[in-house]
Amino acid sequence: MSSAQNSLSFLALGGINEIGKNMYVIQYGEDMVVVDCGAKFSEHNILGVDLIIPDMSYLLEHQEKVKALIVTHGHEDHIGGIPYFLKKLNIPVYATSFTLGLIETKLKEHKILRESELHIITADSEITLGEMSVSFFRVSHSIPDCLGIVFDTPEGKVVHTGDFKFDLTPVNDQSSDIHKMAKMGDEGVLALISESTNAERPGMTPSEMLVGAHLEEAFLRAKQKIFISTFASNVNRVQQVVDACIRTNRKLALLGRSMVNVVQVARERGYLQMPDWMLVNARDVHEIPSERIAILCTGSQGEPLAALSRLSTNSNRDVKVHPGDTVILAASPIPGNEKDVSRVVDNLFRLGAHVIYGSASITGMHVSGHGYQEDLKLMLTLMKPKFFIPIHGEYRMLHIHRQLAETIGVEKDNTFILRNGDVVDIQDGTARQTRQVSAGDTYVDGYGIGEVGQVVLRDRKQLSEDGMLVIVVTVSKTDASLISAPEIISRGFVYAKDAEELMTTLADVVKETIENFKEPNIFAMKQALKKAVGQYISTHTKRKPLLLPIIIEF
Amino acid sequence: MSSAQNSLSFLALGGINEIGKNMYVIQYGEDMVVVDCGAKFSEHNILGVDLIIPDMSYLLEHQEKVKALIVTHGHEDHIGGIPYFLKKLNIPVYATSFTLGLIETKLKEHKILRESELHIITADSEITLGEMSVSFFRVSHSIPDCLGIVFDTPEGKVVHTGDFKFDLTPVNDQSSDIHKMAKMGDEGVLALISESTNAERPGMTPSEMLVGAHLEEAFLRAKQKIFISTFASNVNRVQQVVDACIRTNRKLALLGRSMVNVVQVARERGYLQMPDWMLVNARDVHEIPSERIAILCTGSQGEPLAALSRLSTNSNRDVKVHPGDTVILAASPIPGNEKDVSRVVDNLFRLGAHVIYGSASITGMHVSGHGYQEDLKLMLTLMKPKFFIPIHGEYRMLHIHRQLAETIGVEKDNTFILRNGDVVDIQDGTARQTRQVSAGDTYVDGYGIGEVGQVVLRDRKQLSEDGMLVIVVTVSKTDASLISAPEIISRGFVYAKDAEELMTTLADVVKETIENFKEPNIFAMKQALKKAVGQYISTHTKRKPLLLPIIIEF
Repeated sequence: MSSAQNSLSFLALGGINEIGKNMYVIQYGEDMVVVDCGAKFSEHNILGVDLIIPDMSYLLEHQEKVKALIVTHGHEDHIGGIPYFLKKLNIPVYATSFTLGLIETKLKEHKILRESELHIITADSEITLGEMSVSFFRVSHSIPDCLGIVFDTPEGKVVHTGDFKFDLTPVNDQSSDIHKMAKMGDEGVLALISESTNAERPGMTPSEMLVGAHLEEAFLRAKQKIFISTFASNVNRVQQVVDACIRTNRKLALLGRSMVNVVQVARERGYLQMPDWMLVNARDVHEIPSERIAILCTGSQGEPLAALSRLSTNSNRDVKVHPGDTVILAASPIPGNEKDVSRVVDNLFRLGAHVIYGSASITGMHVSGHGYQEDLKLMLTLMKPKFFIPIHGEYRMLHIHRQLAETIGVEKDNTFILRNGDVVDIQDGTARQTRQVSAGDTYVDGYGIGEVGQVVLRDRKQLSEDGMLVIVVTVSKTDASLISAPEIISRGFVYAKDAEELMTTLADVVKETIENFKEPNIFAMKQALKKAVGQYISTHTKRKPLLLPIIIEF
Repeated sequence: MSSAQNSLSFLALGGINEIGKNMYVIQYGEDMVVVDCGAKFSEHNILGVDLIIPDMSYLLEHQEKVKALIVTHGHEDHIGGIPYFLKKLNIPVYATSFTLGLIETKLKEHKILRESELHIITADSEITLGEMSVSFFRVSHSIPDCLGIVFDTPEGKVVHTGDFKFDLTPVNDQSSDIHKMAKMGDEGVLALISESTNAERPGMTPSEMLVGAHLEEAFLRAKQKIFISTFASNVNRVQQVVDACIRTNRKLALLGRSMVNVVQVARERGYLQMPDWMLVNARDVHEIPSERIAILCTGSQGEPLAALSRLSTNSNRDVKVHPGDTVILAASPIPGNEKDVSRVVDNLFRLGAHVIYGSASITGMHVSGHGYQEDLKLMLTLMKPKFFIPIHGEYRMLHIHRQLAETIGVEKDNTFILRNGDVVDIQDGTARQTRQVSAGDTYVDGYGIGEVGQVVLRDRKQLSEDGMLVIVVTVSKTDASLISAPEIISRGFVYAKDAEELMTTLADVVKETIENFKEPNIFAMKQALKKAVGQYISTHTKRKPLLLPIIIEF
């Protein structure tokens, strides 16, 4: 169960076979470094689960070895789990200034900012952790200040790309440092750990700059208010909205808490150039001529409580969408969000707005932050790794990423397609996938209680599909005879009035079941009731409501 | 409330602001004709709702006027509600032979085939219903034998397009009858009622024939078994799979109940040309060399219980996917199904299959059955209607369809964008949208009970998100004093062991609440418990479980 002595290991606690909750570990000898600690939103959100974070029990078991958390960039799937992690294991955190700004906001909300140990790094930093020397390189992505990481160990160099694309005409100088990467490749890379999000898409990711041109065109055409919705964290896109406002002489209002937060962090730390005169309070928008104002808002994914969704039903107190206004959705729907986005677009059309939405390849209002196939091949070409571990993707993406690696000369057997929890050990130039450590989903639900278990979710699922029946029976302590008629209460099953006959028959089934007992045995009676009532309901309605027998003795 | 005498009316009971459960009514004087009676699958399926059908109460209230149901084609969103409708109102049904074949299968399942009155029609049929003369015209779509409908009334001609595209090189001669449409337009069309599904997509829908070419290419390349998954009802695509098998000397096995059913109906009624030697039983697939067999299966939408999904986890008893086999997904994911489809693709890659999937514009393995913008404009151009009612689409599609109609000369005020239940009355050449009749969703859940109400769904939603607490209290009949300690049982809320403290405190809250009563008042006690316990839980856990107090008097 213990790791090999003085060998190099890589393992994933999250981020494999999923998009979300990235968390990886590099270990050399007795030192572990954690890369990223993300969260993902739950597909079970209808079951009341808010957030999923990685199962961190492996790290807690080896906590004396865990030396640092290094964060590649500030997206939720890389930082969302940090407060929960630090509460259990308070280790030093290393990240760039912008990334740390976003992390600090979270730690403040969780009231643990003061006791956290945060270190600002840049692409030129170097950190020594045990026998590992850790350095960095700039990568382009859809959020400022992103890093790739180089772990220089006695066994060789391991490179973790972070999330990246190669944007050769980036906004705000956020370009990938190709020269540094080329030098690393020349010096020799033992293992490359690279993200795979867009491995299915042929070609090269378009440059962020293209969005600017389309934004400006739309701004020039608009005769009234312009609403633009995008990811708040995409500061470079926000910069282009600001630039379009300057060129077309419009002021800008911000709607949505995360938009206001991120713009503040970005301005304070120098990632967003925005003149003071430009910013208008949402309350004052109505005082400005409609052709002189733009509104930048959250909600590009159709989130029901976000600004754009509220605007689409005209439920924002301060700002209204009027017929003839322009609304730009400067983001593509993330898979799973299509229906929510469509609902918002429908409502905006109902208000008479001119809506620019749909496929980014037609509107030009969005580009991806993740490299397409040619970007991934360029990274592999620059690094020339011996071993390759595709991460950050569902299985088909990892599979295709391996095929891409083969085309640039990585041997098929030298690529490792892992599952969360899988460990690759490298010793004396040989890599082997051997062990499995515990890994999985930890559900976070609400504030008060903490984590939700699988049993609770299974019950919720059953309750949600077929509802429940409570069966109340009072029996004599002496001979188990019924003291009063059984009471049956249903919720989420059927209308009692629709099913009076069913309820009457069920009461008979309950009675007969209890009459078989000559002395009270609560456990046996409950089992017998569940079986008899369950079978009757299943036969007559094809349903399986949750059954809850309550037996009271007197 | 009653309709105007001898006027022409159109109303929608389903199909507007949604894709699904199409049901429209044309009325002249005292005669109503229903067009289509569809179902849709529920977004609430996690709440145990299987199917949604239109609220038909308006028709039942006026049942003496309802003369016939005419069905344009055999897709679920046009026929899925028919058994439920006929059970309540047994009127004559008119449809083409293929469509009737699919309807009969449904009526058999619901055991009402014998008493139903079914009439086969063709594009050349004419039916007289009161003062209306009803005729038909052929349209292309993604299922055989589709019709548009012409209602010739004293007020003028109303044309309902059904679902259509203009496929100029169709498979199996399923082309739209452009000449007949042109003649209708020349003679004068008062109102056009046209489907809007693809109103957002520029250009003209590609021809089904293109899929055939790509299929054949993939068949020629494959060295082992080929699996093809598509919609069973797309018989013309099935024909192209059959043709590819013939040209590459493969036999064909069918997997999935609906695939077997539809192929049988299609062959019996002459819509599918398939030699007898070709068909192989799934049990015998393993006896045939892998380069001589193809398997046509259901499950292109990633449905967890369908054939492709089961194949992807190798849980089909008879047929296995082996490394090197080819799997073709000859269908695009319907919005909302993307994640299910991705899961199946992931699993197929895990089995080592070569999977052809993803955007139809890249794979060429799918074309839509619904007309794009140029198809819709061609229909409008041929018909030259005075009034226009876009149907069969979400709001933005109807909105864009109106804009398209404007571009070919329909006056903006002559287009009516309705909601389900809205009525357009036409009298003396003037159309007005005036009344609203009851329309909405009727939920169908399981077999035994029939319909599910909104209250039941609301309960299920609450149960699914936060679970429930049952509070059992036994009190004295005389002074309401507690006879035993309150019992609190939770399901889907929190683990009792995680929350022992919470449960203990809640028992105290219950005790205190009951002790305030000096005599038993069951209703008031329940209300008081709900309030006290609900507030405590909400403050301390931010949750709102369903609370079910049970009070027993002795």
